[in-house]
Amino acid sequence: MVKRKGNLTLPSETGFLKETKEILDRWGADAIRDSDGTKLSDELKNLDAKIYTTYFVSRGHNEFAKQNIDECQHLYLMSNFNIATSNTVEIKFMEGYFSEQVKPDYDHDPKKWWEVINRTTGEVIDIADWEVDSEKDIVKVNNTKEFHEYTVSFLVYAIWDPTQMYNHITNDWGDKEHDIPFDVRKEKSAKFIEEYMDKWLEENKDTDVVRFTTFFYHFTLVFNDNGKEKFVDWFGYSASVSPEALDAFEKEKGYRLRPEHIIDQGYYNSSFRIPSKEFLDFMDFQQQFVSKTAKKLVDKVHDAGKEALMFLGDNWIGTEPYGDYFENIGLDGVVGSVGDGATLRMISEIPHVKYTEGRFLPYFFPDTFREGNDPVIEAKDNWLSARRAIMRKPVDRIGYGGYLSLAYKFPKFVEYVENVADEFREIYDTINGVKPYSGLKVAILNSWGKIRSWQTFMVAHALWYKQIYSYLGILESLSGMSVDVEFISFDDVKSNGINEDIDVIINAGVEGTAFSGGSEWLDEKLISTVRKWVYNGGGFIGIGEPAAIHHQGRYFQLADALGVDRELSFSLSTDKYFDKEIEEHFITKDIKRAIDFGESMGNVYALTEKTEIIEYSNGEVHLSSNDYGKGRAVYIAGLPYNEDNSRLLMRSMFYASHKEEELYKYFADNTSVEVNAYPDIKKYAITNNTDEMQKSIIYDGNRNSYMVELKPGEIRWMNI
Amino acid sequence: MVKRKGNLTLPSETGFLKETKEILDRWGADAIRDSDGTKLSDELKNLDAKIYTTYFVSRGHNEFAKQNIDECQHLYLMSNFNIATSNTVEIKFMEGYFSEQVKPDYDHDPKKWWEVINRTTGEVIDIADWEVDSEKDIVKVNNTKEFHEYTVSFLVYAIWDPTQMYNHITNDWGDKEHDIPFDVRKEKSAKFIEEYMDKWLEENKDTDVVRFTTFFYHFTLVFNDNGKEKFVDWFGYSASVSPEALDAFEKEKGYRLRPEHIIDQGYYNSSFRIPSKEFLDFMDFQQQFVSKTAKKLVDKVHDAGKEALMFLGDNWIGTEPYGDYFENIGLDGVVGSVGDGATLRMISEIPHVKYTEGRFLPYFFPDTFREGNDPVIEAKDNWLSARRAIMRKPVDRIGYGGYLSLAYKFPKFVEYVENVADEFREIYDTINGVKPYSGLKVAILNSWGKIRSWQTFMVAHALWYKQIYSYLGILESLSGMSVDVEFISFDDVKSNGINEDIDVIINAGVEGTAFSGGSEWLDEKLISTVRKWVYNGGGFIGIGEPAAIHHQGRYFQLADALGVDRELSFSLSTDKYFDKEIEEHFITKDIKRAIDFGESMGNVYALTEKTEIIEYSNGEVHLSSNDYGKGRAVYIAGLPYNEDNSRLLMRSMFYASHKEEELYKYFADNTSVEVNAYPDIKKYAITNNTDEMQKSIIYDGNRNSYMVELKPGEIRWMNI
Repeated sequence: MVKRKGNLTLPSETGFLKETKEILDRWGADAIRDSDGTKLSDELKNLDAKIYTTYFVSRGHNEFAKQNIDECQHLYLMSNFNIATSNTVEIKFMEGYFSEQVKPDYDHDPKKWWEVINRTTGEVIDIADWEVDSEKDIVKVNNTKEFHEYTVSFLVYAIWDPTQMYNHITNDWGDKEHDIPFDVRKEKSAKFIEEYMDKWLEENKDTDVVRFTTFFYHFTLVFNDNGKEKFVDWFGYSASVSPEALDAFEKEKGYRLRPEHIIDQGYYNSSFRIPSKEFLDFMDFQQQFVSKTAKKLVDKVHDAGKEALMFLGDNWIGTEPYGDYFENIGLDGVVGSVGDGATLRMISEIPHVKYTEGRFLPYFFPDTFREGNDPVIEAKDNWLSARRAIMRKPVDRIGYGGYLSLAYKFPKFVEYVENVADEFREIYDTINGVKPYSGLKVAILNSWGKIRSWQTFMVAHALWYKQIYSYLGILESLSGMSVDVEFISFDDVKSNGINEDIDVIINAGVEGTAFSGGSEWLDEKLISTVRKWVYNGGGFIGIGEPAAIHHQGRYFQLADALGVDRELSFSLSTDKYFDKEIEEHFITKDIKRAIDFGESMGNVYALTEKTEIIEYSNGEVHLSSNDYGKGRAVYIAGLPYNEDNSRLLMRSMFYASHKEEELYKYFADNTSVEVNAYPDIKKYAITNNTDEMQKSIIYDGNRNSYMVELKPGEIRWMNI
Repeated sequence: MVKRKGNLTLPSETGFLKETKEILDRWGADAIRDSDGTKLSDELKNLDAKIYTTYFVSRGHNEFAKQNIDECQHLYLMSNFNIATSNTVEIKFMEGYFSEQVKPDYDHDPKKWWEVINRTTGEVIDIADWEVDSEKDIVKVNNTKEFHEYTVSFLVYAIWDPTQMYNHITNDWGDKEHDIPFDVRKEKSAKFIEEYMDKWLEENKDTDVVRFTTFFYHFTLVFNDNGKEKFVDWFGYSASVSPEALDAFEKEKGYRLRPEHIIDQGYYNSSFRIPSKEFLDFMDFQQQFVSKTAKKLVDKVHDAGKEALMFLGDNWIGTEPYGDYFENIGLDGVVGSVGDGATLRMISEIPHVKYTEGRFLPYFFPDTFREGNDPVIEAKDNWLSARRAIMRKPVDRIGYGGYLSLAYKFPKFVEYVENVADEFREIYDTINGVKPYSGLKVAILNSWGKIRSWQTFMVAHALWYKQIYSYLGILESLSGMSVDVEFISFDDVKSNGINEDIDVIINAGVEGTAFSGGSEWLDEKLISTVRKWVYNGGGFIGIGEPAAIHHQGRYFQLADALGVDRELSFSLSTDKYFDKEIEEHFITKDIKRAIDFGESMGNVYALTEKTEIIEYSNGEVHLSSNDYGKGRAVYIAGLPYNEDNSRLLMRSMFYASHKEEELYKYFADNTSVEVNAYPDIKKYAITNNTDEMQKSIIYDGNRNSYMVELKPGEIRWMNI
């Protein structure tokens, strides 16, 4: 059998022709790309493969940028908190910031664009009461109240592109010039990017795919005065701000934004914040601008007969692949980094493109590809995590990045990727475009809804944080589970109710965050709609602090449905009697070990004896279910990702939606094994998600069962 | 040497004369009391000892109560939450309540005295929209909003005294008559209690001390429909409510209370709730009434040549020994149950009485005094805990309760108490009235201040709760520490500032509670006064969630002083770099084991590198200190009581107040050993607080040190 080639992008570099040919062949690559720090020679470009070329729009053009420094990008920043020990306080607002990255913008009148706030009271200080010393970068505030705290919100020029800054500092690039980001909203820059694109397309005839890295505005990444990361928000819009943007915003939306709408008490509208109307308006406004402007470049790429591919990261702000304006850009594809199953789905589910591509790990960099280290371990882990998600919705292509010459020194790695590539193509050819069997449909309910599809609970792309892993496990579990997943917002529910096809709603997160919902739940329409829906038969799953806000004697506003609430110390006087675990429960049937609730949640208790307590320890309920009318609500204290927890969530959903019997269709009792079915092509696949042998009972589509034994990582195709 | 006798109260019982004489002699008792279920025979009353007789004012007089059932006591209760699944809902408001304890009061018009509340919105429902079915105990609410929740706040008659109910049910007293509590605010009852007192005094000539158990209103203790405890609040005023009281309140205070001011979302003004102005007014109003009315009885007791002693418990509501009106009652003494050091101080510090008495544990009941159990263990633990507090401020008397005949069967116990009695008298004779040496003065700052002296963080007297033990340890530590302790309120600070003699302020507890302070900290005056005080050299100790309320980018409103804040997930994007523990620190110097932070506190991080991180684990700060101006602020994640934690708190205080050198005056380096000095009498005492041998370096008043070895439980007196 001749193996099919294609669907794989290979990084290469000048001077590595022979080996590139070999790998091209072994991995079946049909595209070659450059990477940060590598170039493709003409010989490489003449190989039988498409050529991807990285393209920077708003950085990497320092000749232009330096001549038009007034068009460089802006950021809104907040100073430290400063205590007024007398009736005046001097604020060194640049304290803690990196002067190589940002510098105060004194060109636009601070009295118009800046704000001084009394953070003890929240009052904005009258502009007559403060003055700026632009020599010393100090704001002096007069008539302060003793022992109140003050901050300055100030506008800076962003004089170094954050990604280049990161690479520059990390790789010790010395006196290599700093890329100055310029703002395409400004006149000369707007003209420049179009002219340069034309010129570049003219000069790069052999490029087949223009890999935009990316468009105009970088996610928020601010360094401190030691040249280290100070603030990182992969979703942050702070670096898309400018006087021009704010003026245009006012014109379009009919009101003016305050600096505080961007500064947001120093939280800068982190996606954990319940978004204000003003911030949502600003996002909408920027998305429109970005899509309109990006479209001009993409059109040029198309006119030149090439494809336009967007990297999901770096300067991706405003593109919002799940937003309302993304389609207008007209991209051919999106490529993103695959950290796990959830990030794979984040890429593979992107609508309105011809193809999606996942860049797999490890990146071919010396940190992993060094003597004594086995890069296959990371590759295997990455592939097995991602494969779960691919079985549900594949990316169209896979790829790698970095120095191929490094990877080439690890023959076992080369061999492993060869196998991965073949397996990927086999899966893709079998299931692409085929709707996989789903036992039910779940909706993740939060403040963001669709626009943050597969992006909830994240701070920086795929990074671990103590405060999020107990929630990220929900997405990771769902990414490879045979259920349909949708992301809906509180506004969706208020405006349109809950769609009939939804079986289960999940609300999860820490109290007060956009994911749990906080004050959103005080909306009568929202709370009564969700209650009614559950009461009439819906399934609800609350994780962590669902629907939590202290109000009228309740903390979990859905306590009645959940059958549990959290003790805030106000009701200690009320006896809590219910602590008896149900001996065997549908939800925990396949789980043989102690459940890992991650950071878990303290002081949750059952309201009545009616609540089914499934896990109780340390004087607390961590897992429970409650019948509510014809519906059911399950509570889980936290759900970090592991195979058992993924199964626990799956069973919780089938239980909550009263579909217990349906679970045993295309199902494996071993939590390390999963079954995905594709009825339209009469096939199903059994996957061993581990690197060890696994035995499992398998249930087919008629709930008939049999035993299988699977090799490490095996995928076994069966006919229906 | 002839041993002195006195200062000890012995329980006795009819038919136990000979043994009583023996014990009286061995323990040196000078008073004999009856107990629940025991009587004293004439022979016992003729022994050479004062006679205490238990006296019930507003219960135990069923002949009167039954004839005047309209004067029985009231309670305000809240129904369960009821979901309206259509535009009407029927609320069985008595559901979950014990019909033998309470019955709905239909005599007072429910439309006037009850309230129906929409708990989804907080709205009070128009009285036209609901009706009461007094046959079925149902409130039917009309025009409800679908899937909103409703509660009924209703008035009930309290037809069974809670203490008798508890004893009755616990001891299976069968058809023994239920004590009906009557309300002395009502006309006939007011008259009855005076007449009965006169009569009783006439009939009980041989009583020396009338032991009031207690006055008029029981703390809130409500049972459920299984006859088990449903709600217990040792500080609760709910059972002091009545239509008469509310009418009188309106007359006195000039406004009318709503049922909700008592119901308080079902929390019933638990002392963990930040008290509303209305509830504080009600407390004040009831205290005035209670003190005025109790005084009449006390005066009669005095007129009869007897002493009036109040039991601190049961019907003690409104007496408030640390309140403004307690003095007016004119009591001779207060007796209370000693659970530990903190409860001892709660008794021994009571002002305006001639003497205080601690009733020690174990109570002579069959649960402890049974074959195979060693009651000495509990007695020793009780004594060693209480002795720490006695060294600071002794009660004037000790005593026991229950069946002496039971205790008598345990000769080792009899012997142990004999030693305790001698030791107590030795301590008392040495230090009573002598001011002990204090290294500094600490103020506990919360919503309650003085009135809840030694009563903070408690739910039910001396009971353990998972949510409080990490804070109760503060009081328990302080109860035996050589520092002066004061309790101050936020209002005190706002009105009078912070007294000059205070070295350290402690603010501790769970966010939003009266102990931590919640929204109180949004008061500009409070926050700036405390900041200024610390900045100018004060010491601040925050435990758990001090000064916590999310506002303007801060959670701990004193984050600037503490140098730490708690991550609520809004600032995950901000890098947290500071995790380096200081290797050796003054605060942890004597501590050899891992610190037990109890329930601890998650996600606390240092704001800058300036913060001294003393304990860091699990990605969190649990113990830190920060210099703030000339002052210092220490953060502790939780402080359950143990010897090490007591020392940790002590060192934290000396460190926070910059009195490090002063620590080594009358000090033991072993945390199991303590030193209390009494300069006025030129003595100091070294105590071994454990039941094991201990060695310690001791520092005298000139910081000269020497080594001692102490026997288990030893107290060693030294001359200065």
